[in-house]
Amino acid sequence: MKAEIIAVGTEILLGQIVNTNATTLSEELADLGIDVYYHTAVGDNHDRIIGSLEQAQKRSDLIILCGGLGPTEDDLTKQTVADFLGEQLIYDQKALAKVESFFEVSKRKMTENNRQQAHIIEHGQPIYNPVGLACGCLYQDGRQYYLLLPGPPTELKGMLKEEVAPLFSKLFPQEHQLVSRYLHYIGIGESKLDTVLADILHEQTNPTVAPYAKSNEVMLRLTASGASKNECALLLDELEEKIQTLVGEYFYAYGKDATLEEVVVQKLLAERQTVAVIEGASGGECQRRLSRIPNFEAVSAGGMTVPNKLSKECGLGLSSEQIQFDGEISLETTIKMAQAGQRLFGADYTVAITCVAGPESIETQVPGTIILALLTPNGLKTQEMIISRDRTYIKDGAVKYALELLRVNI
Amino acid sequence: MKAEIIAVGTEILLGQIVNTNATTLSEELADLGIDVYYHTAVGDNHDRIIGSLEQAQKRSDLIILCGGLGPTEDDLTKQTVADFLGEQLIYDQKALAKVESFFEVSKRKMTENNRQQAHIIEHGQPIYNPVGLACGCLYQDGRQYYLLLPGPPTELKGMLKEEVAPLFSKLFPQEHQLVSRYLHYIGIGESKLDTVLADILHEQTNPTVAPYAKSNEVMLRLTASGASKNECALLLDELEEKIQTLVGEYFYAYGKDATLEEVVVQKLLAERQTVAVIEGASGGECQRRLSRIPNFEAVSAGGMTVPNKLSKECGLGLSSEQIQFDGEISLETTIKMAQAGQRLFGADYTVAITCVAGPESIETQVPGTIILALLTPNGLKTQEMIISRDRTYIKDGAVKYALELLRVNI
Repeated sequence: MKAEIIAVGTEILLGQIVNTNATTLSEELADLGIDVYYHTAVGDNHDRIIGSLEQAQKRSDLIILCGGLGPTEDDLTKQTVADFLGEQLIYDQKALAKVESFFEVSKRKMTENNRQQAHIIEHGQPIYNPVGLACGCLYQDGRQYYLLLPGPPTELKGMLKEEVAPLFSKLFPQEHQLVSRYLHYIGIGESKLDTVLADILHEQTNPTVAPYAKSNEVMLRLTASGASKNECALLLDELEEKIQTLVGEYFYAYGKDATLEEVVVQKLLAERQTVAVIEGASGGECQRRLSRIPNFEAVSAGGMTVPNKLSKECGLGLSSEQIQFDGEISLETTIKMAQAGQRLFGADYTVAITCVAGPESIETQVPGTIILALLTPNGLKTQEMIISRDRTYIKDGAVKYALELLRVNI
Repeated sequence: MKAEIIAVGTEILLGQIVNTNATTLSEELADLGIDVYYHTAVGDNHDRIIGSLEQAQKRSDLIILCGGLGPTEDDLTKQTVADFLGEQLIYDQKALAKVESFFEVSKRKMTENNRQQAHIIEHGQPIYNPVGLACGCLYQDGRQYYLLLPGPPTELKGMLKEEVAPLFSKLFPQEHQLVSRYLHYIGIGESKLDTVLADILHEQTNPTVAPYAKSNEVMLRLTASGASKNECALLLDELEEKIQTLVGEYFYAYGKDATLEEVVVQKLLAERQTVAVIEGASGGECQRRLSRIPNFEAVSAGGMTVPNKLSKECGLGLSSEQIQFDGEISLETTIKMAQAGQRLFGADYTVAITCVAGPESIETQVPGTIILALLTPNGLKTQEMIISRDRTYIKDGAVKYALELLRVNI
């Protein structure tokens, strides 16, 4: 099964957006055991899209196009692929109903362009969009398949997960079962992990191990090939045991999309306890991440952002003199932030996050300084560390290590 | 001048790394007035690289390959391109000296593979690498140019800036100046904008107009070509005037990377006033965005997240009965949130954000409901609206419309 991905959009060729869809699709197809041989990006231009299709037709069994399904003049993908295949575009009634109800509910005027998002290629099948309005389409032409997906990454990911992956595992069953297992680690860098796992990474044939470096954490993807899911599972168990004896202390979760915030919220739900978050320089990032997890409302006691002295005084009632005396970026002040937060919100767990995102030092504290204070039913836990890199990376680290501190103490 | 970019690397096709080099190169080439028509990613495979070159040769004047110049077994790019052009690889003495001194200094053993990083194509010219060891190469074949660059983004960026850009502006002088202007709009969808601007979008030759849909907003890119920057500016002024008479009411900022939060912070800094943000379901997103803008600390009075009744009671001191009576998702409660926030933080501007992110309705309010209350020195401003889409989009809308409400009232 040879697949290729054609991303359509002039903005990609102008360097205005990164073609992350090709990466998302490739990762998903790898999980399905489908090999991707080419990525192409082409502009919103009928002739050049046709050219890319003619070439793909010569060399690939599965041709995935993403982008250009929207409501604007330069969204040409569906019409162009239909022309290429000698088919018409028709409305999918279910998709059309969704478009129409969207404009009815939002009380906005619907243009003809909007309706076109419900088009599919005649004799093709609709691929519904759980996130947006543009309907996708799968078309079979003999041994070849053409899949059309929208460009916005959230829409593409949603359709991939809910519609395409289940459909493909039926359409393209694997002779060999391929099973992947994902392990998440925090507190160990990719290069250190590489060194510790060097032998395993070199020996690997089946199962294979691929490290994915992420901001302040690392994910390992273990993939086993075997006659049955059971055989794969046994191979993975064996390999995982080897790995965990070496780096298990840094492990926090299984699952491709697992996040620390998800683990924290699940533990809080299980324990029926609540959390409050008080953030200095991280400016609401920790609260935002937690709030994206389903049912966070059930465990949240609220949160506050206090990026400067003024807000620490007004919001938390800390005294100006005390902050001056302790230092704004200090363990003492961070503990007082947590205590004030607990008095205000009355949560079972109250975490206060202080960091110096840089580039300048604050008081005597250098960029990358992270100070955490967590009040739990079993008392106070604190952590101080220094990481380096840019502002975004440091703030992300402050948030992730705060969530990790919660995770190990809940 | 037609250019295309070929990224070489199996890890791209496996989805293990994102092809950001294509984006970096496209952005740089756009600034140099060179049009990029295709991106391709191909694996570390001799025949498939040859195939990509054969096709590029048919359609492009400038063919840029990145990746596969390193010291490992699967770094095939230089040899493959040389084979394709019927040339030999030779050592560039300056590049070779750099490789040798590197291993001498770092006291590591140098393999033959390492020396090969100093290879260039015979009759080509070296493109030196200020960051790493792999030497690049530019080769001219009649009217066609082949440029080979390494894969590591920092090396590619360094060579692009210090070596390639100066060389290209000499080799490919622009007959015409190219000037782009970016306009940001909120409150009008891409399809509506498209319809309103239909005539302009159809007529366009010079300047050109390209709409970029972003979450809850739209950016227009106007690009003019002329003999001088002045001539371009006049063309852009003329076109912008036409556009603004049609959609000017939705305009909020100029500049490719402009954001609402940036405009809001700049206005607050100019007015020397402070802001506090009280967020319901948006969960800290508004505070996070503001906190990323330089000098936000100077205008922030703090913020709070109150995603549920409990936190609205504890954090803001609203009474359970009153919330029950008004409804948690109501204009009345949102106003009370703003008032309580103002009492606590004492900001000049206090905005409260309530929304129903969905998928379920809350009380009688449907998903997509957004309710905003802003307390200003000139009194209370409120806004209620309904947008549709997924949770992320709705929360983003709540935040952006809150920032827009701040922008127009500061």
